[in-house]
Amino acid sequence: MSDLLWPGDARAGDLCSDASVLDALVRVEAAWLGTLHAYGIADAADDLRDLAGPADLPALARDAEAGGNPVIPLLALLRERLSDRDRAAAAWLHRGLTSQDVLDTGLVLVLRAAAGQIRAELTAQITVLAALADEHRATPMAGRTLTQHAVPITFGLKAAGWLTGLLDARDILAAAADLPIQLGGAAGSLAAPRALGPADELVAATAAALGLPAREPWHTARAPLTRFGDALVTATDAWGRIANDVLTGSRPEIGELGEATGGGSSTMPNKQNPVLAVLVRRAALAAPPLAATLHTAAATMADERPAGAWHLEWATLRTLARRAVVAGSQTTDLLTGLRVHPDRMAATLAAARPRIDAEQRRVAPDDHGPYRGDTDRIIDAVRARAGAGKGEPAC
Amino acid sequence: MSDLLWPGDARAGDLCSDASVLDALVRVEAAWLGTLHAYGIADAADDLRDLAGPADLPALARDAEAGGNPVIPLLALLRERLSDRDRAAAAWLHRGLTSQDVLDTGLVLVLRAAAGQIRAELTAQITVLAALADEHRATPMAGRTLTQHAVPITFGLKAAGWLTGLLDARDILAAAADLPIQLGGAAGSLAAPRALGPADELVAATAAALGLPAREPWHTARAPLTRFGDALVTATDAWGRIANDVLTGSRPEIGELGEATGGGSSTMPNKQNPVLAVLVRRAALAAPPLAATLHTAAATMADERPAGAWHLEWATLRTLARRAVVAGSQTTDLLTGLRVHPDRMAATLAAARPRIDAEQRRVAPDDHGPYRGDTDRIIDAVRARAGAGKGEPAC
Amino acid sequence: MSDLLWPGDARAGDLCSDASVLDALVRVEAAWLGTLHAYGIADAADDLRDLAGPADLPALARDAEAGGNPVIPLLALLRERLSDRDRAAAAWLHRGLTSQDVLDTGLVLVLRAAAGQIRAELTAQITVLAALADEHRATPMAGRTLTQHAVPITFGLKAAGWLTGLLDARDILAAAADLPIQLGGAAGSLAAPRALGPADELVAATAAALGLPAREPWHTARAPLTRFGDALVTATDAWGRIANDVLTGSRPEIGELGEATGGGSSTMPNKQNPVLAVLVRRAALAAPPLAATLHTAAATMADERPAGAWHLEWATLRTLARRAVVAGSQTTDLLTGLRVHPDRMAATLAAARPRIDAEQRRVAPDDHGPYRGDTDRIIDAVRARAGAGKGEPAC
Amino acid sequence: MSDLLWPGDARAGDLCSDASVLDALVRVEAAWLGTLHAYGIADAADDLRDLAGPADLPALARDAEAGGNPVIPLLALLRERLSDRDRAAAAWLHRGLTSQDVLDTGLVLVLRAAAGQIRAELTAQITVLAALADEHRATPMAGRTLTQHAVPITFGLKAAGWLTGLLDARDILAAAADLPIQLGGAAGSLAAPRALGPADELVAATAAALGLPAREPWHTARAPLTRFGDALVTATDAWGRIANDVLTGSRPEIGELGEATGGGSSTMPNKQNPVLAVLVRRAALAAPPLAATLHTAAATMADERPAGAWHLEWATLRTLARRAVVAGSQTTDLLTGLRVHPDRMAATLAAARPRIDAEQRRVAPDDHGPYRGDTDRIIDAVRARAGAGKGEPAC
Repeated sequence: MSDLLWPGDARAGDLCSDASVLDALVRVEAAWLGTLHAYGIADAADDLRDLAGPADLPALARDAEAGGNPVIPLLALLRERLSDRDRAAAAWLHRGLTSQDVLDTGLVLVLRAAAGQIRAELTAQITVLAALADEHRATPMAGRTLTQHAVPITFGLKAAGWLTGLLDARDILAAAADLPIQLGGAAGSLAAPRALGPADELVAATAAALGLPAREPWHTARAPLTRFGDALVTATDAWGRIANDVLTGSRPEIGELGEATGGGSSTMPNKQNPVLAVLVRRAALAAPPLAATLHTAAATMADERPAGAWHLEWATLRTLARRAVVAGSQTTDLLTGLRVHPDRMAATLAAARPRIDAEQRRVAPDDHGPYRGDTDRIIDAVRARAGAGKGEPAC
Repeated sequence: MSDLLWPGDARAGDLCSDASVLDALVRVEAAWLGTLHAYGIADAADDLRDLAGPADLPALARDAEAGGNPVIPLLALLRERLSDRDRAAAAWLHRGLTSQDVLDTGLVLVLRAAAGQIRAELTAQITVLAALADEHRATPMAGRTLTQHAVPITFGLKAAGWLTGLLDARDILAAAADLPIQLGGAAGSLAAPRALGPADELVAATAAALGLPAREPWHTARAPLTRFGDALVTATDAWGRIANDVLTGSRPEIGELGEATGGGSSTMPNKQNPVLAVLVRRAALAAPPLAATLHTAAATMADERPAGAWHLEWATLRTLARRAVVAGSQTTDLLTGLRVHPDRMAATLAAARPRIDAEQRRVAPDDHGPYRGDTDRIIDAVRARAGAGKGEPAC
Repeated sequence: MSDLLWPGDARAGDLCSDASVLDALVRVEAAWLGTLHAYGIADAADDLRDLAGPADLPALARDAEAGGNPVIPLLALLRERLSDRDRAAAAWLHRGLTSQDVLDTGLVLVLRAAAGQIRAELTAQITVLAALADEHRATPMAGRTLTQHAVPITFGLKAAGWLTGLLDARDILAAAADLPIQLGGAAGSLAAPRALGPADELVAATAAALGLPAREPWHTARAPLTRFGDALVTATDAWGRIANDVLTGSRPEIGELGEATGGGSSTMPNKQNPVLAVLVRRAALAAPPLAATLHTAAATMADERPAGAWHLEWATLRTLARRAVVAGSQTTDLLTGLRVHPDRMAATLAAARPRIDAEQRRVAPDDHGPYRGDTDRIIDAVRARAGAGKGEPAC
Repeated sequence: MSDLLWPGDARAGDLCSDASVLDALVRVEAAWLGTLHAYGIADAADDLRDLAGPADLPALARDAEAGGNPVIPLLALLRERLSDRDRAAAAWLHRGLTSQDVLDTGLVLVLRAAAGQIRAELTAQITVLAALADEHRATPMAGRTLTQHAVPITFGLKAAGWLTGLLDARDILAAAADLPIQLGGAAGSLAAPRALGPADELVAATAAALGLPAREPWHTARAPLTRFGDALVTATDAWGRIANDVLTGSRPEIGELGEATGGGSSTMPNKQNPVLAVLVRRAALAAPPLAATLHTAAATMADERPAGAWHLEWATLRTLARRAVVAGSQTTDLLTGLRVHPDRMAATLAAARPRIDAEQRRVAPDDHGPYRGDTDRIIDAVRARAGAGKGEPAC
């Protein structure tokens, strides 16, 4: 899976790729079949996973159109290949399920994998930023509001602000990422599963086999997916917000921040572009409308399976998840390699004086100190949220 | 506050109106001033709330442009009027604060009020739907997928599906609605507050006076607001999803559902339009891009106060909140007055036979029962989430 | 109409306000009634415009909900008041029309007025920028790509780039702004008008009376409105793009551009914020999702009048139009008062040397001139599009 | 290029695929090199197109991240391979260009190809619908507003309404699809091209070689791209609007419309889903936020090349274009195979009587005819726009 038009996409590797989705769909079918077998309902089971692979993707993708989803041609393929090996298993395959059960739960599997990667990136970033906030808690720089110099701050305070965004994203994503199984049969009543056995137990066992929480059918109540999308955007927001400051700080006239290794140019040998920040900002601008599309899908759900709203979710979720994984990885690199230039910060501040001290002169005319307010306490509090003690790294 | 172009807007009354915002801004200033006085910092305090009112709005709105926000002209107005009454209080007014502290916290106040109304609507709706799901747990109807008859379900199951969306919205909103104070001074360091006294205590006391949780400054880490917006959209999604089914069910060819009193037409005396569902659907389509705009604002935060991204939030939040309040109220009326026509449901089902029973014949050929699967269990489970016992109303 | 949360909103005055919409709706009814009378169909006509006014808005807005649109209560009000004056006219009022005819055409009237204002702003801006591009065609500054110094340019070239965006917006808006009448009767067949007389002539005469082009009914084919919305966003894009450069150029470390009079702060006496650019940027970020909402409405049109998609358009169009009017006016002020600092531009360029000349050294090692390429020709070409001859102002 | 999660994607074939983009980028470099050679500037030229191919995509995509765009690694690859064949050509490759010139113009090439396909689909659809409108100009059916029966119409009138949307889309796309070359050198001044020769002629010749209109640089004035995106969404709007009616008409309770061959189900052998309409509706809901993203990119342009806004366009344009091509092709199939059931329409109408005739009884009490108003005239007018004479096919 390569994407020439989204530089960095390769960082997401196979997460949510067609191959991964295919594998996830097969795993869902296998887990259900295994459950039917374990309950003595089916007289055979099969791991299935060797039956279909990347070579099948073009045909599956093409044939997905006829029925409107890829599960239908996948089943035809699996049944044909499985019947050569185990006719009984082939006969039980997919029994009791509907396409949406398989596709929804398969997507849940690949999305959880993407979320795992994003959470790992956030954890790494939190550690880096908690350390940066600590290291630079007393590094003076100009605070800026509406582009203008406002009052002095420290870079540690700025880093704590960035960190706050990451911690919020971490917490919101933690609540959203535990996506459950979606399995309800043709119209959400579990009628076909119940015709085979104890439907609630079959669902729970299948969920367990897949490592998923159980849940009542949510075939047209899509808050789990919109919440997931919203959480991803909360992360890209936090990353974008950091990238914006890095971009401004990297301007040569300011020069207070920089990337470890800048990007080159096709014509200008002098260029050192803050490429990671550029690409993260790009993702932060791209993500909100994608999450909005998931809400539009949720808002246009209808009947027991809607005509288009369901189909709208799939590619949107995939794109959003990959964008988030890539931006998360790029942000980790950005923060890990971030170059902070206290000298340039100090020079800006010196040049901004005495105007930048106007508030201090007015509010605290007798205080000629650094006017840092609660900076240390705020940094400590944010670091504590990050799991870092005073002067210790975040865990 | 009237809105000729958003029928139903009057349901939101004064929530988030200019008058409410003005009052909230004044309350924030008063709470801070009161705290300064309580801590012995200011030598006077004042309730302020009689100093500005709706008559001041046109001038305040006009003058807000010069500095880019309405707090600046409001302060000029308050100072002038207060100085006639209490020169000391006037001198202490706003001391230690920045415009963003007042505007953010003022918005938090009006948004919390809107959220309270929305939560009340959700609670009312949940009660109604829990009862409907119970009452109609065995009312047969055709389940529909991709517009076509799929398998039989009951209306109780459909209602349980609607209810699931409301419960998800309730839970997500509960977590999001507890918006905290935002108070950090000019650049988030609490420098000016600290120049006056123990900044953390001053913030906590002000928060307590306003009935808000305390929190470290989040001036450029806007997840509290995006989470709030996402939660509102989760609610409008759930309402839109219900409206869609009511609209389809109200089609004369289907006739399974109807509103208590339909809307009329300017030319066709025969019309009985499902107006509430129409207007709710409208809101469900309008809301996702508004929440996305909040994320775009969060993603373009920069410096210690951004150039535009902050200003973008205010009207967006107001519009989204009012849309949600109105749609919530309309949905409550819609559900309360919903007319369910079991006879028409039965007729549809009869006409759909035997094709609609095809899955049952294949999966459970010997079962000639109603093929309801786990319908009762699912309804009970969803009702339990709603706080309703078996056969009892939700609390 | 005041909006405390969208500073600058007052610039839009009464454009698209509830009062303006009300007046437009009344004008449409009056024009139709006048046409019926002119064709000898109605035996009376009436100007109607004194029958309803701003004092009626709260009641009309409240009563609009019952039928889902404001035309229904407006008709009740007009009929009642008109019957006191002219019973015959009251009897003919609205005969042959449906609510959508009146509301669509009324919105067309107010939107055209807004577009007129926007076009005037664009014209004014084009004149200013054409002059700026000419004046500064040889004012050297650093060209910047991905935030870094790239090659030298002139400020005139930059101004020509800004101007290109305005010219594109002007041309696209010119094509989109000529919104036609929308009049088709209850379901777009002109059945009721035809029952009264020659429907096509009645429509054409009504259109002429309102100063609108005639057109076949477009009740569910909404490209005229989406095109209008897209054109407004094309304008806000062009303004936002200018604002972004002004914001960067206003940073004290850069100082190459500035607003005539900056905005103040509630706490920092030192601040001179580029408030107009801040507020324009805000609008540029707010507008795209609003235009997208119009497309979502168009895409969800259904039947002969959709259940929600139509209703979604009204407030969206109003908000988008007002945002564009305000941003347009602010941009005119911004450009008119723009302060250009060639000395700071020169200083930046000097500091960027020799690195910024790297491309020139490689591509044109023997050229020690200003490396301006086709700057003069490009400026002349863009100015020619603006209607300005060499060295002359745009017309 | 397969996409398991967007059924039908294969219809877009290689349009805008990574391979097509790569080929387009190479064509741009070759055209420029050829122009330099033709003007006697470069002493060699090369077709280049055999030098890179699909096998290079993974490496190019991966290496695109370092500089932030795929042109940089492509140039390294081309230079290396070309130098084996023609050292002089390798030395002149890309001389005078910047990455953006190549990427923008390459995207223009692939987007124009996609637009060509979309225009062909629109033409085919217009022919089909013009014929349907003619054939069914007198086929009675119920007109529906807000889901309820309104007045009688004919299916021909409905088809003319659908056709109006297609004609609007055709006209808007025609104006937008003629995307020009974008070539301005490092910062839009054509400095490097001018260092080589007559820059305006070089640009014009390169444009001619690529079959593109010439234009002054529009590196940060992106209206050509937003207009293109808006036009694509105008098309998906029109298609979605048709799909919505087909979906409603396909409901078994209504049964007035149907697809030629419906889609199946993985569990319900009885299902005949209107799959094409489902998938078209999906695209119509997906497209508006993508076009909005292009506007957000345009609105956040800055400097002489922005930090992220430019990069945001590429994948967005590709996705939007492919979605539109697929939906266009599906709509053509949908319309070509559309089954119209006049008997069911008549039955609906009969069941709706006498209520559906209420307006007629009131407006034209003596008219017991079909109450079709100007249906025939409207159909003729719309067909005339389509290029079809009375009773003749559209051309």
